[in-house]
Amino acid sequence: MNILFVGDIVGSMGRDMVKEYLPKLKSHYRPQVTIVNGENSAAGRGITESIYKQLLETGANAVTLGNHAWDNKGIFDFIDTAKYLTRPANFPDAPGTGLVFLRINDIEAAVINLQGRTFMPPLDCPFKKAEELVEAAKARTNIIFVDFHAEATSEKQAMGWFLDGKVSAVIGTHTHVQTADERVLPEGTAYLTDVGMTGPYDEILGMDKNPVLHRFLTSLPARFEVPKSGRTQLSACLIQVDKETGRAKSIERIMINDDRPFFKD
Amino acid sequence: MNILFVGDIVGSMGRDMVKEYLPKLKSHYRPQVTIVNGENSAAGRGITESIYKQLLETGANAVTLGNHAWDNKGIFDFIDTAKYLTRPANFPDAPGTGLVFLRINDIEAAVINLQGRTFMPPLDCPFKKAEELVEAAKARTNIIFVDFHAEATSEKQAMGWFLDGKVSAVIGTHTHVQTADERVLPEGTAYLTDVGMTGPYDEILGMDKNPVLHRFLTSLPARFEVPKSGRTQLSACLIQVDKETGRAKSIERIMINDDRPFFKD
Amino acid sequence: MNILFVGDIVGSMGRDMVKEYLPKLKSHYRPQVTIVNGENSAAGRGITESIYKQLLETGANAVTLGNHAWDNKGIFDFIDTAKYLTRPANFPDAPGTGLVFLRINDIEAAVINLQGRTFMPPLDCPFKKAEELVEAAKARTNIIFVDFHAEATSEKQAMGWFLDGKVSAVIGTHTHVQTADERVLPEGTAYLTDVGMTGPYDEILGMDKNPVLHRFLTSLPARFEVPKSGRTQLSACLIQVDKETGRAKSIERIMINDDRPFFKD
Amino acid sequence: MNILFVGDIVGSMGRDMVKEYLPKLKSHYRPQVTIVNGENSAAGRGITESIYKQLLETGANAVTLGNHAWDNKGIFDFIDTAKYLTRPANFPDAPGTGLVFLRINDIEAAVINLQGRTFMPPLDCPFKKAEELVEAAKARTNIIFVDFHAEATSEKQAMGWFLDGKVSAVIGTHTHVQTADERVLPEGTAYLTDVGMTGPYDEILGMDKNPVLHRFLTSLPARFEVPKSGRTQLSACLIQVDKETGRAKSIERIMINDDRPFFKD
Ligand SMILES: [Fe+2]
Ligand SMILES: [Fe+2]
Ligand SMILES: [Fe+2]
Ligand SMILES: [Fe+2]
Ligand SMILES: [Fe+2]
Ligand SMILES: [Fe+2]
Ligand SMILES: [Fe+2]
Ligand SMILES: [Fe+2]
Repeated sequence: MNILFVGDIVGSMGRDMVKEYLPKLKSHYRPQVTIVNGENSAAGRGITESIYKQLLETGANAVTLGNHAWDNKGIFDFIDTAKYLTRPANFPDAPGTGLVFLRINDIEAAVINLQGRTFMPPLDCPFKKAEELVEAAKARTNIIFVDFHAEATSEKQAMGWFLDGKVSAVIGTHTHVQTADERVLPEGTAYLTDVGMTGPYDEILGMDKNPVLHRFLTSLPARFEVPKSGRTQLSACLIQVDKETGRAKSIERIMINDDRPFFKD
Repeated sequence: MNILFVGDIVGSMGRDMVKEYLPKLKSHYRPQVTIVNGENSAAGRGITESIYKQLLETGANAVTLGNHAWDNKGIFDFIDTAKYLTRPANFPDAPGTGLVFLRINDIEAAVINLQGRTFMPPLDCPFKKAEELVEAAKARTNIIFVDFHAEATSEKQAMGWFLDGKVSAVIGTHTHVQTADERVLPEGTAYLTDVGMTGPYDEILGMDKNPVLHRFLTSLPARFEVPKSGRTQLSACLIQVDKETGRAKSIERIMINDDRPFFKD
Repeated sequence: MNILFVGDIVGSMGRDMVKEYLPKLKSHYRPQVTIVNGENSAAGRGITESIYKQLLETGANAVTLGNHAWDNKGIFDFIDTAKYLTRPANFPDAPGTGLVFLRINDIEAAVINLQGRTFMPPLDCPFKKAEELVEAAKARTNIIFVDFHAEATSEKQAMGWFLDGKVSAVIGTHTHVQTADERVLPEGTAYLTDVGMTGPYDEILGMDKNPVLHRFLTSLPARFEVPKSGRTQLSACLIQVDKETGRAKSIERIMINDDRPFFKD
Repeated sequence: MNILFVGDIVGSMGRDMVKEYLPKLKSHYRPQVTIVNGENSAAGRGITESIYKQLLETGANAVTLGNHAWDNKGIFDFIDTAKYLTRPANFPDAPGTGLVFLRINDIEAAVINLQGRTFMPPLDCPFKKAEELVEAAKARTNIIFVDFHAEATSEKQAMGWFLDGKVSAVIGTHTHVQTADERVLPEGTAYLTDVGMTGPYDEILGMDKNPVLHRFLTSLPARFEVPKSGRTQLSACLIQVDKETGRAKSIERIMINDDRPFFKD
């Protein structure tokens, strides 16, 4: 069975990209399970209930989040009723959950969301929390997908090795730049340091590049906004998993933009 | 003309990888200029004079460094006489230089090394310093290569856009994980967020993964060492540059490991 | 001659404290020069033009700022016309100035504002900038007051030793907690790691303690506000300076709150 | 009953200061319980078994530590047998303990050591851990002393308010600069943001100021050492506690150096 994972969707340009290409990707790759990271889907900051529902309607089976989970205050009103929404599990005392189960036809899959701590705010240990949630998930299924939302490459590689052989995939998010190190680790876990972002192609991490540059040059505050128009990109990956054992067989990176047009099928 | 750049060489396993594959890469890609990042070439920490010389003998025309430049104290003894060695130019008051010129046959090229500040120690502004050095370099050549040694994807993308049209290439180093976002920016600068590392393939950023994992799990100190044996990888990129204008025509990522064998003749 | 310096004034409770006690302090200590830090004077975030004017009317001769200088966007409209307002001098490219001169009767004094970099955003080097501004100030006066707005005790002590003998006083701000290490350094510079804050007494750094505690306990976002009522404190120091040489003769801490009532006449 | 607490003892100069003044302080203040922070007692980095024993012989009843606990590798050999030594309790998986009990005559006291996370490496939540340990301690005694080893004033004040009424004292360590904000909080907990350090008086945080200044000016590495000679200081505080309820009645700061000689008794 195949898992398709689309990285951080940024603003309306990111959502439009998902609307246009998710059907094509699903038609081409035939994933049984489709997961998207939505932490920046509402104007770059958090997610709203209507965007969450729209992402499910467009073809996502589950939505993961990250450090921006709480940016849009509406999250506190709907997160506890959103059955297919995960926030980083190692927030110590937050609404919502970091582990959801999906049943699609005869397949059950677990989706886990964790957040790193290096160069990020204090949280409970993501490794300890991973161990605990993987054990809980294993009671129901071997197909376990982990979105590890983290900054440092060291922490992400550490999580990959830590969970190798215990989960189907450890895929990083948060840096908004896709890495080229996809591989199946020796014990059968698919790994990619970062899947990258989905949204503006000619900006900085999806935000208008001018205020970001202004801040780097002056250290003065600047309001970062997601542009409304311009060229776009989509970043994703496809993991092929053994349905019984949950072991990954392969992982493929997907990147769609003007320099890498999607011409399949 | 072609520029070949090999990312952070880690320890003896990294140096062996360079010895084995640099000749093959040069024979295949025929670069006029070959640059390697050597900040981790001496047991993962800095560089020695003999390793510097060995890298030149193996085929590098210039060696760049990064935050680990000063780890091996010997650097202070030879950096000022090492004509093809650059350290990050925005150290405010350090020996050595952040800009070197290479003359190879009829080609002159400038190599600039800068270090980021996000999630890194305080330094002079890399953007201001870039502006200053690019102006100095332009007086002699249009072929300007920038190794931007930085942690944050935002700062690296910002440097790419900041220098677009002013230099031939802005290539990131330091995270030790190759990114998949190589492109030629609209004004003609080749850009890659990180070229990745050269050394152990089954560890964490090239260091033995067990002590690194121990530290993530316990927050206790652990001595990080580069393993002496095991599988290896090489990360690099090839930039095709217009000899007269200095504009990049293309950029190609190179990654060699057991999952991506180098089979080109 | 005497310099009175009042630490970070936080919101309306801080401003009220200044209105009540600044006249009493001036009447008791007879300072020739009075300086206040106003970076949090507008509801905890920045300063407005009317608050700036009000602080001058209440008896301040100069107002210093810090990392919160830019929080209230109105600052960009009036900072360039505010003759007695300093923002940290080592912002690389900001409106306003980091050095102002005061002439009061026959006394000329220079006020310098600098910001640290340890645990704070990247800026130009505060030590280099200090050297440059002290030289400029020395051309006009030996009486030089430095507000070093910084987090780390190491960086603040370093600045004290670095400027010892070159300025009349190096007084820290930013941590909002007064330190007890006031002293005249061997070469004649008065030093205090932090002068402390002026505003709410029963909160956390002057902000309502409940959302701050909530954030420490949950890592969830919380809106920090300055309370409008409750007990208050004022933190300050008094430096006695030789009028000719600019050397400090003594430094005295001042703290006023319910536990340390001000009973001097 | 009285608790005497001496802040971070740095190197041999700090230990000499303790040897000279601890007997005088004990003779003057008559504390039933004496606690010292020893995280820098061995040449500025960690503690050895013989120094630990020497501190007990000099008059300490318990020794607390901090982030430098593990710097001297010998700690791993004796920490589990050192009955009166505490390391920060919120290290997730470390030898030793963060809670020790002392019985002195008819008095039982609990000593808790915790470490902050703001501007410090990831650890378990110090607030959650505090709650857990205070409950354990309460089962045996109301006299509970907390050494909160942390950088940020906000986190330290937050801990003070969080434990107000639950423990006898929350005293900060780590910044090596004594703060002037000692008070008994409304519910009866004595609070001081930082007690300060014991050791060299004319250096930076107790380390030779020249390499520290060199690092601030150049960002180049520098080896920090504790000087062997020069003027010294001792920083401490005295807390008067109700023997039955454990409520603090008063807190007094103690600082001894050339500018503040100890002339009592
Ligand atoms: Fe994101
Ligand atoms: Fe994120
Ligand atoms: Fe490196
Ligand atoms: Fe590096
Ligand atoms: Fe402030
Ligand atoms: Fe501040
Ligand atoms: Fe310490
Ligand atoms: Fe410490």
